[in-house]
Amino acid sequence: MTSLETWVEVPKNSDFTIYNLPFGVFKNKRLSARIGIAIGDKIVDLSILDQEGFFSDMFLPEGVFLQDSLNELIALGKVQTRKIREKVQELLLAENEKLRDHSIRGKVMVNRREAEMLMPVKIGDYTDFYSSMEHATNVGKMFRDPENALLPNWKHLPVGYHGRASSIIPSGQDIFRPKGQFKDADMDSPGFGPSRRLDFELELAFITGKSTKLGDTISTADAEDYIFGFVLFNDWSARDIQAWEYVPLGPFLGKSFASSISPWVVTLEALDYFRVDGPSQDPEVLPYLQCEKAHSFDLQLEAYIQPDQVKKATKVSTSNFKYMYWNVAQQLAHHTVNGCNINVGDLMASGTISGPSEDSFGSMLELSWKGTKPIRLDSGEERKFIEDGDTVILKGFAEKEGVRVGFGELKSKVLPSK
Amino acid sequence: MTSLETWVEVPKNSDFTIYNLPFGVFKNKRLSARIGIAIGDKIVDLSILDQEGFFSDMFLPEGVFLQDSLNELIALGKVQTRKIREKVQELLLAENEKLRDHSIRGKVMVNRREAEMLMPVKIGDYTDFYSSMEHATNVGKMFRDPENALLPNWKHLPVGYHGRASSIIPSGQDIFRPKGQFKDADMDSPGFGPSRRLDFELELAFITGKSTKLGDTISTADAEDYIFGFVLFNDWSARDIQAWEYVPLGPFLGKSFASSISPWVVTLEALDYFRVDGPSQDPEVLPYLQCEKAHSFDLQLEAYIQPDQVKKATKVSTSNFKYMYWNVAQQLAHHTVNGCNINVGDLMASGTISGPSEDSFGSMLELSWKGTKPIRLDSGEERKFIEDGDTVILKGFAEKEGVRVGFGELKSKVLPSK
Repeated sequence: MTSLETWVEVPKNSDFTIYNLPFGVFKNKRLSARIGIAIGDKIVDLSILDQEGFFSDMFLPEGVFLQDSLNELIALGKVQTRKIREKVQELLLAENEKLRDHSIRGKVMVNRREAEMLMPVKIGDYTDFYSSMEHATNVGKMFRDPENALLPNWKHLPVGYHGRASSIIPSGQDIFRPKGQFKDADMDSPGFGPSRRLDFELELAFITGKSTKLGDTISTADAEDYIFGFVLFNDWSARDIQAWEYVPLGPFLGKSFASSISPWVVTLEALDYFRVDGPSQDPEVLPYLQCEKAHSFDLQLEAYIQPDQVKKATKVSTSNFKYMYWNVAQQLAHHTVNGCNINVGDLMASGTISGPSEDSFGSMLELSWKGTKPIRLDSGEERKFIEDGDTVILKGFAEKEGVRVGFGELKSKVLPSK
Repeated sequence: MTSLETWVEVPKNSDFTIYNLPFGVFKNKRLSARIGIAIGDKIVDLSILDQEGFFSDMFLPEGVFLQDSLNELIALGKVQTRKIREKVQELLLAENEKLRDHSIRGKVMVNRREAEMLMPVKIGDYTDFYSSMEHATNVGKMFRDPENALLPNWKHLPVGYHGRASSIIPSGQDIFRPKGQFKDADMDSPGFGPSRRLDFELELAFITGKSTKLGDTISTADAEDYIFGFVLFNDWSARDIQAWEYVPLGPFLGKSFASSISPWVVTLEALDYFRVDGPSQDPEVLPYLQCEKAHSFDLQLEAYIQPDQVKKATKVSTSNFKYMYWNVAQQLAHHTVNGCNINVGDLMASGTISGPSEDSFGSMLELSWKGTKPIRLDSGEERKFIEDGDTVILKGFAEKEGVRVGFGELKSKVLPSK
């Protein structure tokens, strides 16, 4: 990759380098909701750039950046959004004086610290896959048969389920510990109350940027045309509620109380440099799931827990997106093979991504092995599951030969039940 | 109930009586999408009534009826929508000359036959419950243990799952037979192709008319305030795809290729007269699921199959909404007990409603008992599941002491796989 320099001051280890330039929706005390691109500690206010005519050769719809979601923008198609991102990259290059020396520069470059990040997209439908073999195997070992941990269908199709879209919230929004029914093995009848086994799930999700009609399918070869970008995803889970309710129709209230996403949508283009082969698949998959090229990405994923009143968060998991057995092209090809239509702004999450080693497991369920092995935090406290007052932080980034592209933080605090 | 007469000619056995007055969205060759109320073979064009000042005392937002969905209208709240419906009822009474003798009458009263009915609502999230004990028992007998057909959780909570909202389509829109993976007991590895066991599910669904915030709950006592009205719901199912994919996370592609709804939303107010007690619940349910009043409705539900080139449809099932073990107030209380937020325009379906007798089963799976007992159509043909070219028609109505309120037809034809 050509080395790029920018005139913007980008702190060392910033996720928001000149190579990244993710899209997000923000507002602040002065400014109504609008679309920006992050670089370093700044946000490029695209609506101001547009007003000043920097995009005049692109014939964009009026007010396309003065929106409270990215949906209209990404619906313009990849050719347009790629041009916008490339234009911004060009304007931020060290040698480019057009914005650097322009009187409008102060208005265009907004401080990230002073901005409130909003939900980046209006999510139509949300799907959660279950695509990490290590995670599915761990769960199978704990709850079913250690000798036959994976169910017979698992290596033939990317198992997934429909999730609740209304309760997906942005980073920074607190969640309430959910109440619900649970029935432990030693109980005669179900109990009711705040969940005793609240968990996070370390996931990555993609956002679709192109629609299909009912009856249409998407091939693995075309799948990436439909993927606009990625966000970190915390699929909050109440394990006790889930365990009691989930047969035979799958997770419901154990998940639908909240799912959190990071605010900056990292484009597929920005991740292209970190493309790697995924795990080899055996048995061979059916033809509609076979891929001609690599669709996995070497992206480190991390989870942290920070108890209330404790200054420093403890890293509890270091995983990687490349561990995922089923890749995003296969997920999308499978999702549409029955003719299911997708819309701009659908969100499809990976499922918990666990790696092979114990410190790479992507949920407390696995890290504490169903609560039997508490993990120790730097503060000296122990955790089997998430406690009230805990803040869970997910991070994710790719780094190769001095090029870094990341997601920033996805940070959510757990409040006691309402 | 007071007997009402209208100046509109309403055919005998019409579902759209003066007692019903359901809301829907329609257009025709001359008219753009707009909101109307059905009576007999006519649609009352509410946008024209509004323009002519018939609702001037209600201070409605401008253009509230010139919409391609009911969402904005029902978001005004029940007080307003009830007033609108009552105003229309008043205008249609035999002795009321205000519309009857008005020069605008011809423009207001549109022929239903010439109208194209659109999706009545933009559906945010869609949930499908599994609330018929007879259906859950039949499925349990067929696929699990005939002696323990119901799973342990079933009588303690209304089992449900999140479904795909994007593929919900209106009556009249054809569906394509879905393709997918299946693995029969005699197969070594999964096969792929058009589903060999395509099925309908006879359901009723309610549409929410009021939102909650994340963390809020809805009590059974308040639940009906959040229910705007009901539609017929055909939860198309590919049994072979579903059987292979559904463990452990529930139905996915076996359902998401299409679900069909009837176009006229029958309000809760119109059904109030047909309120009955539901089945008694034993064991006693947890306090948050207990109800002070009856929330079941005596509504006959019917399914018909009409093969291609055959003139008459054969009735294959006669069921009733009152068979449902878990009522709508319990469904909504359960759905929100974990703090899950709901939005205006969410759709929550009952699950297949089967009755106690074999001719009241609400799916081909049950009617043909997993394909082992083909059912005979009037044309002499037999059916185990739904064939290409078949049209499936669902109907539903309540009738008591000369008062009839119904849904009209939900009609969809199955085309071969694309």
